[in-house]
Order: sequence, then structure tokens, then C-alpha cells
Amino acid sequence: MLTTDICIVGAGPVGLFAVFEAGLLKMRCHVIDALPVVGGQLSEIYPKKPIYDIPGFPEVLAGDLVKNLEKQIAPFHPTFTLGERVEHLHKQEDGSFIVETSEGTHVACKVVVIAGGLGSFEPRKPAIDNLETFEGKGVNYMVRDPEHFRSKKVVIAGGGDSALDWAIYLAGIAEDLTLVHRGTSFRGAPESAQKVVSMAEEGHLKLLLKSNVTDVHGNGKLNAVTVLVDNETPYEIETDYFIPLFGLVPKLGPIDNWGLELDKSAIVVNTVDYSTNIPGVYAIGDINTYPGKLKLILCGFHEAALMAQSAYNIVYPDKKFVLKYTTVNGIQEL
Amino acid sequence: MLTTDICIVGAGPVGLFAVFEAGLLKMRCHVIDALPVVGGQLSEIYPKKPIYDIPGFPEVLAGDLVKNLEKQIAPFHPTFTLGERVEHLHKQEDGSFIVETSEGTHVACKVVVIAGGLGSFEPRKPAIDNLETFEGKGVNYMVRDPEHFRSKKVVIAGGGDSALDWAIYLAGIAEDLTLVHRGTSFRGAPESAQKVVSMAEEGHLKLLLKSNVTDVHGNGKLNAVTVLVDNETPYEIETDYFIPLFGLVPKLGPIDNWGLELDKSAIVVNTVDYSTNIPGVYAIGDINTYPGKLKLILCGFHEAALMAQSAYNIVYPDKKFVLKYTTVNGIQEL
Repeated sequence: MLTTDICIVGAGPVGLFAVFEAGLLKMRCHVIDALPVVGGQLSEIYPKKPIYDIPGFPEVLAGDLVKNLEKQIAPFHPTFTLGERVEHLHKQEDGSFIVETSEGTHVACKVVVIAGGLGSFEPRKPAIDNLETFEGKGVNYMVRDPEHFRSKKVVIAGGGDSALDWAIYLAGIAEDLTLVHRGTSFRGAPESAQKVVSMAEEGHLKLLLKSNVTDVHGNGKLNAVTVLVDNETPYEIETDYFIPLFGLVPKLGPIDNWGLELDKSAIVVNTVDYSTNIPGVYAIGDINTYPGKLKLILCGFHEAALMAQSAYNIVYPDKKFVLKYTTVNGIQEL
Repeated sequence: MLTTDICIVGAGPVGLFAVFEAGLLKMRCHVIDALPVVGGQLSEIYPKKPIYDIPGFPEVLAGDLVKNLEKQIAPFHPTFTLGERVEHLHKQEDGSFIVETSEGTHVACKVVVIAGGLGSFEPRKPAIDNLETFEGKGVNYMVRDPEHFRSKKVVIAGGGDSALDWAIYLAGIAEDLTLVHRGTSFRGAPESAQKVVSMAEEGHLKLLLKSNVTDVHGNGKLNAVTVLVDNETPYEIETDYFIPLFGLVPKLGPIDNWGLELDKSAIVVNTVDYSTNIPGVYAIGDINTYPGKLKLILCGFHEAALMAQSAYNIVYPDKKFVLKYTTVNGIQEL
């Protein structure tokens, strides 16, 4: 069993900065995230995109901000459980908690801080009967390793950037690539859309517009999909893989069942210290809500600072805290 | 008359970042500060000191943070009135304001944001009769140009860092330097205190402990001070200058008379949007107070973001604002 002062759920920028604010007050942190890397959305969704609204950075790549935060919290030696999803919160008789993950990791702590961003991201699945039957057997919702599709027949569905980008990329790897799109124009970048149209004209991929995949077929493993083009007679396309790319939807996940007060999937907190309705459990960053709430990273930083002051009273019930400025005293390692 | 959307009182880090948050929402800002430079305390008191608690900066010099913020707000072309103190707030019939400075500058605006830090800093003056009579005529509360004291007789009073540092520095410039200190130990850095004691032993300066300056004398210009050493008989020391260095005290200044609700010299705000009791007037950063308030720069950044959302409804009463992320759309110049 891991033991710490504060268990932080979510290793995004706000979760990481919470380690810093806790560390200034001599509280140790363990951080859990379902993703295999720290940084949350910044690492997973847009590591190479610039952010302009972090105070003091006229422009910073999301991935670099994460690296800076890792460096900033290093003196406090946080520990991490990555690639595991937080499942259960067990309240102990003495008021402390044991947090349990999907892989059975147990973390004993005095305070729990949920910095879960928008929750865990899950693929938006099209409404096709039997689709789930073929998950992992020819139906994939994301492309982890393009080599997996080399010399295979592939059908991609979608009209956004991922559908366009992967169609372009996999057309050069797969034996046969078909892109199925409901509309006639694309939500993705105009250059990518133009490229897909050119590639279709040159015979490098098949493009089916005003089309939908309506059924999936196979015997234990996918071998065909039914396509309905412009409301004409549906027909089948032989394929090894079907990759629907309709974006990601945030899900609160198991935290939903912890008894937290929620408002439209966000955790209701009080702005004095960003505490939830469960004593000892705080929620900071995009996952919380309160009057005036803005889903900005910089707001999560502020919430982390006020949370830490309040958590200090739980971790050290007998000490009185005096705010010290880092400019005067610097940082003391934990 | 200058005209703008938002008049920001205070050009410290929080006042500067407010320009950014306002700019994202297409609101123009004019910034007023009593200091001749932007950056507030960061520029005036500790430009070369590192700060460790700005999120994303493991370490940043206060002066560099100010430079970064200036660069970050440049696309929004803020205008500045520096070296003038805000004196009056004139509410207009249509709900807008005219802000008036000590030098008679008038700024017409729809919203006023007070980002005044700890207010203006004023020297803490010792209780000596006639002291103010000699201000600028031999009595100085700060050392602006050390050369001013070359080959002069100087008496410094105080036991903190400024008193020690200036005693050491001016001992090499002045004809004659005396340091008068009430106690026997110093509040300043131990190395500086040790150095002053050594210099006194070597005859480079005179050190009077358990001593107070109790009177000042002169005829239009200072020529002597009375010193009381260890409660023995007071005596006079001839001097050209008397420099009491007892630190700075923050003063709210004329803002005190604007009718704002105050709590111990801080402006009471509501945490939904950091508005004050006067509609259209907001207070952000160290100058405000609310339950849970921490006087941290990063908290002021958050307050600036929420303020801007609320101010938008005053500046553009007929538009509905939709939050856009800079990562998606970048920054649009004003």
C-alpha cells in the first residue's frame, strides 16, 4: 500500500501544479492518471500546439509547459501511478482515504484532490448494431500503431482532422483505403480536405461522400461493412479494419459514483478552498464548477493554491500555517 | 481627454495581465501607475530576485516576468500614464467613469479595474518633531543617487537591510558616516551586520547601538541631529544629511475615499467576478480581499480572467460572449 499526504487524481497541468503548492506547505503527493504520461490533454491531444494565455508566456508549446511544470515540482519528489484509472474511494474511520485504481493499486492518503480535467476521454461511437462485438477484432477507435494496418484493407469513417489525417497517412500503408463521410464538406483543415480529394482523384484512396457505414459483418473477426451512399441501395465493402473517427467525448467515469455533488458532470465546489461536499476531497481545474467558473489552466493554478492552504489544516491539524513568499525563502526540498 | 474601455489602476503583474484578458475579449485598456515604470513591486523592490511560484516557471527573475508580460500584452496595444497617482473617480450619468490623476490627466472609461497591489508605498517616518520641516533639506527617506552624498556628513538610522546596506555603501563615499540603531542586534542579513560591526571597529564608520535620533536642527537646512545613547545625556552630531531607513508602509491612498467597501485596508470583492460594491469598479490582486484570499501573483491572474468576462457585459452590453481558447484561434491583435 502506497502512503502519502495528498492523492491527486489527474496529472494534467493543474494536478502537477497542485504538487508544487502542496510541496511549499511540506505536504507530499502521489499522482494517478489513466494516461501513460503526465500532462493530461496537453500531452495527449495537443503537445505541439502553442498556448497563448498562460500568464508570463507570450507563447508556449503545450508540451513545453508540461516539462516546465515537471521541473518546477521536482524538488518535492512526487510519486506517480500512470496508466491506471482511479475507480474507488474508500473513506476510513479516522477520516483518511484509500484510493483504489483499475489495476488494484491502493493509495492511503489524508486528502484527495480531483484534478481530472474533463474526465477521461472516450471515443464517440457511431450507432451501429454489433459494433462493440467487433471491438479489437477489426473495429478500432484510434490508430495507435500505423504499421498494424500495413497491406490491410481499411475503412475509415469521419470528416474531422483525425479522419482526414489518418486517411492520408494510411493510404500509403494499407492495401486499400476507403474514407466514408456523411457530408460533402469537411470539418477538418481545408488543406487536408483538398489533399484527400486529390488523392481520391488520383486513385490513392476511395472517397465516399454523403455516405454512412450502417452495418458490420464477420465471423468472429470483421470482414466487411455495409455502406449506404446517398440513400441509394446499400452495399458491402470487404475490409479487415473499420476505424470510426468521430472525436472524443469526455466521461467523468467511476468518480461519478463517489457521492460528489455534481452539476452537468462537473463537481460543485466552494470557492473559499475548492472543497467538495465530501470533507477531505477537493476538486480543481476543468472538472469543477462554481459561479463565474472559467475552464482555463490559469484558473486551475489559483484553485490549487487555495486548496493547498485548506488541505494543510487536514494534513497538519495541530500546526498553524504562516504564508511565506518564495522570493524571500526560496524552495525547500521535501 | 483619453478614452478607453477599461482604465486599470496599477501596472504591476496583475494589472498588466488584465490587459491581456481584456484584449482577448476585444476591450482596450489604459493603465495608470504612480511609479515611473511598469511592473509594480517587481520592478521597484525586487527586479533581480528570483520568484519560484509562478506556474510554469521553475525560477524567474521578477524583472523578466514583467518583460514577458509586456510582450504578452503588446498585441493589444495598451496605453499608459506612468508617474501619476490616481486621485479621483468621477461617476458619469450614463454609468461610465472619468478617472483623474494627481497631474490632472483625465481618462474616460466604461470600467475601472483597481490592480493596486498593496497600494502606494511610503517610507515609515520616525516620530521626531520638525522632521518634515527638513524633508528635501537634509532629511531623505531613500537613497536615489549615492553620489549625492559624496564627501558629506551622513547619519543613517535603522537596523534592517536597507540601513545596513546603505551604511556599508555610503561609508566609502561620505566624508563621515554614522549608523544609529535602537537595539543591539540587527534585523538585516547576519553577514551585513557582521560587516558593519567590523567596519566600525576599523574606523570606517561610527556605530551607535541602543541609540535614537530624537531631534533635528538647522536653519533652513539640516546641520545637526540630537542622539540619545543608552539613555545617557543626549548630544548633538553635526551632519549634512539624516536618512531614517525604517522600511516602507503601504498606503491605500486617495482610493480610500472612493466609497469602496473596505476590510483592513483591502477592497472587499465578490468571487464571481471580483467586482466591488461600486458597479463597474473591480479590484484584483493583492489589494482585494475575500474568504480564502491569498496574496499571490498567480491568484491575481485568475481574478483578472474572471473580471474580464464580467466587464465584457458592461463594455459590450448587447453582445453575448463565447469563450474561445487561444490554442484554437491564437491571438487577434487589437
